[in-house]
Amino acid sequence: MGLPVVGMVGGGQLSRMTHSAATALGLSLRVLADAAHDSAALVAHGVVVGEHTSLADLLSFAAGCEVVTFDHEHVPGSLVRALEQEGHRVLPGSDALLYAQDKQLMRERLHSLGVDVPAFAAVGGAADLDAFAAEHGWPLVLKAATGGYDGKGVWVVDDQQQAAPVLASGVRLLVEELVPLRRELAAVVARSPYGQAAAWPVVETVQDGGVCVEVVAPAPGLSEELALAAESLALRLADELGVVGVLAVELFETADGLLVNELAMRPHNSAHWTIEGARTSQFEQHLRAVLDYPLGATTPTAPWTVMANLLGPQDGEDGGDGGDVGGRGELDRRLHMLFAHDPALKVHLYGKALRPGRKIGHVTALGEHLDDVRRRAREGATYLRSGSWPR
Amino acid sequence: MGLPVVGMVGGGQLSRMTHSAATALGLSLRVLADAAHDSAALVAHGVVVGEHTSLADLLSFAAGCEVVTFDHEHVPGSLVRALEQEGHRVLPGSDALLYAQDKQLMRERLHSLGVDVPAFAAVGGAADLDAFAAEHGWPLVLKAATGGYDGKGVWVVDDQQQAAPVLASGVRLLVEELVPLRRELAAVVARSPYGQAAAWPVVETVQDGGVCVEVVAPAPGLSEELALAAESLALRLADELGVVGVLAVELFETADGLLVNELAMRPHNSAHWTIEGARTSQFEQHLRAVLDYPLGATTPTAPWTVMANLLGPQDGEDGGDGGDVGGRGELDRRLHMLFAHDPALKVHLYGKALRPGRKIGHVTALGEHLDDVRRRAREGATYLRSGSWPR
Repeated sequence: MGLPVVGMVGGGQLSRMTHSAATALGLSLRVLADAAHDSAALVAHGVVVGEHTSLADLLSFAAGCEVVTFDHEHVPGSLVRALEQEGHRVLPGSDALLYAQDKQLMRERLHSLGVDVPAFAAVGGAADLDAFAAEHGWPLVLKAATGGYDGKGVWVVDDQQQAAPVLASGVRLLVEELVPLRRELAAVVARSPYGQAAAWPVVETVQDGGVCVEVVAPAPGLSEELALAAESLALRLADELGVVGVLAVELFETADGLLVNELAMRPHNSAHWTIEGARTSQFEQHLRAVLDYPLGATTPTAPWTVMANLLGPQDGEDGGDGGDVGGRGELDRRLHMLFAHDPALKVHLYGKALRPGRKIGHVTALGEHLDDVRRRAREGATYLRSGSWPR
Repeated sequence: MGLPVVGMVGGGQLSRMTHSAATALGLSLRVLADAAHDSAALVAHGVVVGEHTSLADLLSFAAGCEVVTFDHEHVPGSLVRALEQEGHRVLPGSDALLYAQDKQLMRERLHSLGVDVPAFAAVGGAADLDAFAAEHGWPLVLKAATGGYDGKGVWVVDDQQQAAPVLASGVRLLVEELVPLRRELAAVVARSPYGQAAAWPVVETVQDGGVCVEVVAPAPGLSEELALAAESLALRLADELGVVGVLAVELFETADGLLVNELAMRPHNSAHWTIEGARTSQFEQHLRAVLDYPLGATTPTAPWTVMANLLGPQDGEDGGDGGDVGGRGELDRRLHMLFAHDPALKVHLYGKALRPGRKIGHVTALGEHLDDVRRRAREGATYLRSGSWPR
């Protein structure tokens, strides 16, 4: 009997960071990647290049693994079930994963559990929108029921005219009220097959154009009551839905309380801060959970941790020579400058090409004073992206 | 221009942990390993199996690397120089590495720099020992001038009779006084080609049979004066010897002050605690140094950090079914128990077979109270090794 082999479907940064956690535990993550230059495929020893939509590729990948888990939600549910039916251990399982893959099923299930969610309805055509708008008013939010991420698959529309091209796209849609939110929060927990669960402190997530740009741990000024409510909700959902591994519950904080926005059943951007900011990172915890080890302590290691995503250069920003991986020379120069500027900032790069808007890394600052920690994280991310210090 | 490629000669746990640090920096360590099952070869993407004593293998490995560095001292100096002469960037360079490879040259150089070292002499035969004993008395310490590690290549001898087999071995030897030491310390620093240097707090290292079993950071009860002296000494040696990368200076603390015992120019066991216990780990720092990035902050993240080495089972201890990698089943069971017992303990396993006395991993505990932190680290290492809790 050799080392337990954990296979992760998807070769993105979540696999990449999970591989580092696996390495410390004496393991080596096996990765099913779309391409040899995927983020995790660049660093993991056991890389299989294949299609996550091909049952043959999935079965052949799973054959060498004691447990198969995921760095994204894009493996069709029928294939996840087929893997299970062939006797493979898949965690989170298909019955849970369903609710991270299909927003309509998720909304219906949460509603039936008595969990507050934005008002929603399935949309077949323009008439459904009119009916929904009659109750909730415009603007409304259209969402692709499956396949969206990082703001993709979400459209805020003011009227039928703006909705028309989305309705015409043929994508299965649901409509939601545009929630008047104070801010977004995330409650991240992990659960093992044994049923043990552990929660990290609730964080504030800051979005820009549907993409998370900053996470503050813990959420500043959050009342103990709301923090407890959010943690309890996430722990309850992990249990009710039978999640194994990390569960991230994205929340809207409103004047009336908390609404669940999205669920993710894998390591999640809102918990990258745990690598340095908590005694057990979400990546180690996900592995502990899917291997049914007792979970690790989620105690913070500093009063404040702020993670800022490093996005590829935006319009008008200098991404270096060409904005592709060829831009590494310029990124490298910026790294030098940033390391000299802030020797305590932690930089994580994913080995990805510098495409506009793409998450190519993140930086993490930790410390005693929120303003200072936040400024350092923002400085780091802004400088690496643009080559200029924020004013 | 692609990512900078750092190559590390040697596939042990130092390479393994350096690979995880490289992964965060957007890199992927290339490893020259003796065998495909070497610790780092199990987890790194770019593994070349070859001999570190073969110039052909070294040249072919170096061809794809921007910089070549080492996880051990066993590459012959002539080959390191040959790599440099072929135009490869090798860090630390041969002129520095010499003093980590040859204890006699090291002792002579340090003596000429006015640094306190144990009394020593080269040994050609029994007559040299008698002459040395006349001045310093028995017992004496014989050391292989090159190639020793973890207590190997060191013999404490009471008389000529005990020395005879060592003298007859044909190994080039030096003799040293047996220093009446209070305890052992280590001062670990890093230095970049630019000349920037940074020191971690001085630690106490606890040895058992010449093998490090425990490291306490910072060294308990060490006066500020001695701590500063040790740090200054290590920084001065890094500069005088032209070290690039991590330099570990192993020290004897005696009633009269500090003596230098050994030098290592690579990530070192006495600084594994920095993975969780300092803002920048020695592995990240070594990479920053050899890539000539500005160095990271060495600030501790907790008042006390204790690292305990996990050694393969000793005589009379139950290492599981057979004491080989087949013992993973038993180690896995112990991991479950330990994780349940202490959810905040950090476990690092190297993917190595469970051979007696071999370093197969380490555990790290952090916290406010030294006694508690030390107890937790010892409990963890003892339980994983023996399957029994310490009394």
